[in-house]
Amino acid sequence: MSTSSSKPSNLTNLIGYLGSFLTCVTFVPQVYQSWKTKSVGDLSIWMICIVITSTLVWLWYGVRIKSGPVIVANAIVFFLGCVLMYFKMTFVS
Amino acid sequence: MSTSSSKPSNLTNLIGYLGSFLTCVTFVPQVYQSWKTKSVGDLSIWMICIVITSTLVWLWYGVRIKSGPVIVANAIVFFLGCVLMYFKMTFVS
Repeated sequence: MSTSSSKPSNLTNLIGYLGSFLTCVTFVPQVYQSWKTKSVGDLSIWMICIVITSTLVWLWYGVRIKSGPVIVANAIVFFLGCVLMYFKMTFVS
Repeated sequence: MSTSSSKPSNLTNLIGYLGSFLTCVTFVPQVYQSWKTKSVGDLSIWMICIVITSTLVWLWYGVRIKSGPVIVANAIVFFLGCVLMYFKMTFVS
């Protein structure tokens, strides 16, 4: 804050990793509920498609700006998006 | 790439805004489907809670690292998360 340094402060990184953690777990309860109920009719397949595509783009961005939080969060959400897509394809609504 | 400059390149920003755009529209098909079917039983309320909380944290992070893509994307997803929460509270499953 005092100077226009390019390195994020420790607090900034902490906030980023908190956001990263929350983003990582965003789809965990959804995957759990979908797995438990075997019901995914109300889930939009387009949402899942966009989640998978967008996380790939964000990963690219995260690598370029060297942002650990962006990379980690999107790698995990990409995986969970793929799991939801598998459920959507597998479970009969 | 050539030097360790702190300013992201134009391509990096372009990728960031592409990711930002995709993230923005992630929940649009979900909101549309939920609105059309008035059925949200398969949506996890915990997922929606985490979406709302995580976007607030990411907004804070985005402001601190002065990342336009992060700020814009999360402001819009925050709004859509609130809409989904409203549907979840309103539509009887």
